[in-house]
Amino acid sequence: MDEAHLIAKIEANLARRGLSTGNGILTGIGDDCAIFRPKSGDDLLFTTDQMHLDRHFTTTTKASDVGHTALARSLSDIAAMGGRPLFALVALAASDPVWIDGFYAGFLPLAQRHGVILAGGDLSATPTPSCDVMVCGSVPRGQALLRSKARLGDTISVSGPLGAAALALERGKRRLPLPQLALGRTLYAQGVRCAMDLSDGLSADLRRLCLASKVSARLTAVPRAKGAHLEHALHGGEDYQLLFTSRKPIPGTYPIGTVVQSHPDCVFYESSPLPPLGWDHYHEPRP
Amino acid sequence: MDEAHLIAKIEANLARRGLSTGNGILTGIGDDCAIFRPKSGDDLLFTTDQMHLDRHFTTTTKASDVGHTALARSLSDIAAMGGRPLFALVALAASDPVWIDGFYAGFLPLAQRHGVILAGGDLSATPTPSCDVMVCGSVPRGQALLRSKARLGDTISVSGPLGAAALALERGKRRLPLPQLALGRTLYAQGVRCAMDLSDGLSADLRRLCLASKVSARLTAVPRAKGAHLEHALHGGEDYQLLFTSRKPIPGTYPIGTVVQSHPDCVFYESSPLPPLGWDHYHEPRP
Repeated sequence: MDEAHLIAKIEANLARRGLSTGNGILTGIGDDCAIFRPKSGDDLLFTTDQMHLDRHFTTTTKASDVGHTALARSLSDIAAMGGRPLFALVALAASDPVWIDGFYAGFLPLAQRHGVILAGGDLSATPTPSCDVMVCGSVPRGQALLRSKARLGDTISVSGPLGAAALALERGKRRLPLPQLALGRTLYAQGVRCAMDLSDGLSADLRRLCLASKVSARLTAVPRAKGAHLEHALHGGEDYQLLFTSRKPIPGTYPIGTVVQSHPDCVFYESSPLPPLGWDHYHEPRP
Repeated sequence: MDEAHLIAKIEANLARRGLSTGNGILTGIGDDCAIFRPKSGDDLLFTTDQMHLDRHFTTTTKASDVGHTALARSLSDIAAMGGRPLFALVALAASDPVWIDGFYAGFLPLAQRHGVILAGGDLSATPTPSCDVMVCGSVPRGQALLRSKARLGDTISVSGPLGAAALALERGKRRLPLPQLALGRTLYAQGVRCAMDLSDGLSADLRRLCLASKVSARLTAVPRAKGAHLEHALHGGEDYQLLFTSRKPIPGTYPIGTVVQSHPDCVFYESSPLPPLGWDHYHEPRP
């Protein structure tokens, strides 16, 4: 097996699923660069997320779960800005062709579900597998949801109950994240200007939102996934629900607190400071 | 040291060099996605390239050389399409803050030289360092140089003598690639429609160009870098010179042969088939 055969196989798979060109991608895999013709008037969104063995997955994780999750993480960032995903580039490092097949067996169905073109990438034969997925999305001009737009008195909400991922991790259960793209795209029209996705845990991520907006947050109620403890919901990562603020609560979502004046402790839960115990990539090992 | 401090340090460095926003990047590092407002009428180019320890560099390689080379490889792809680079996303995996500083000490001066905004990225604390650099560039609408546009009778040329990188590797010498961006941007106006960059060696890369264009190539003369043998020039990778075809020779570049009718052997050197002995990521280990 050589690189040309590997790429030809991926290309055939893309063609079968209609993911080779489209969404503005004129030339995809096969040249030095992908060529994209943007729709005028839209702003473009760019995000990239890596996954490494022993850091984001283990030797027992199915390659297809890595492929699904790698794309889902970047799509969740597009959802958090209120965008629509257009295309992805995949940098994949792995030496086992079976693992590579497995990766795409997880990646491509999710790409197809959200109409994401696979426009290009890079392959490298390394002994330990890793990947980096870049996604480009679009949003109507000036309508991206920003972390820095929370205003005093806003209701803070989340898109669903929290802690499911931390609970699954604790129980050794498999759980595939689902990016909240459909909801993300409706938020701007409902008056939301400030959003982010929950990847590192509510306590850590809400703190980042507060710092970006120069405000603090007072949490009153946090919806928990079935079986999840409060700790799972407050500090557990990988839920990939959306966190956002708005003047009024948004029907179908979960209000969890209020934006208050800036305070050094940033986030409060029932009047006590809530320390950011979520995931910091340079502090704690993933449990 | 935590992730927020690492990112704040990178941001301060970018601000000092004027690489935080601009070239259409409205919001860079600090939110879920970077926001880019494209200039209407231009096509956009996207490329991504990884570097892994023991695959693309060793434990004795300076981190700054990895940073420079990682960006240079992607910029070379933009050059090969005739584009202008606009911004980059960097996915960096490393646990040593000194190595991370070193990486950017090589990356940022090259970014500054070519006006490349660092719009975002991802950090991951892994024991062995690796990176993936995505670059977006622009090209006037419809004017991207493609591998598939070689025509019968075209002169095949390269932008400079070949084999310097292979020679340096053999001698254990340090050599930093320089992307041929300025030349790349002039080629379209001079009638060039077909180009690619030489990353894996002339024999392998010219074969790819021929397959994409459904033609063959007959080489007559290949300029060699000082001290390089013919083998270095024909098969050595990492030169990052441009390879292109045109109706007439382009002043200041090196004609090396002619585009001829398609033949199963693809590339000929002085009437003999030239096998693709260059670098295949899934075949041979880098020497």
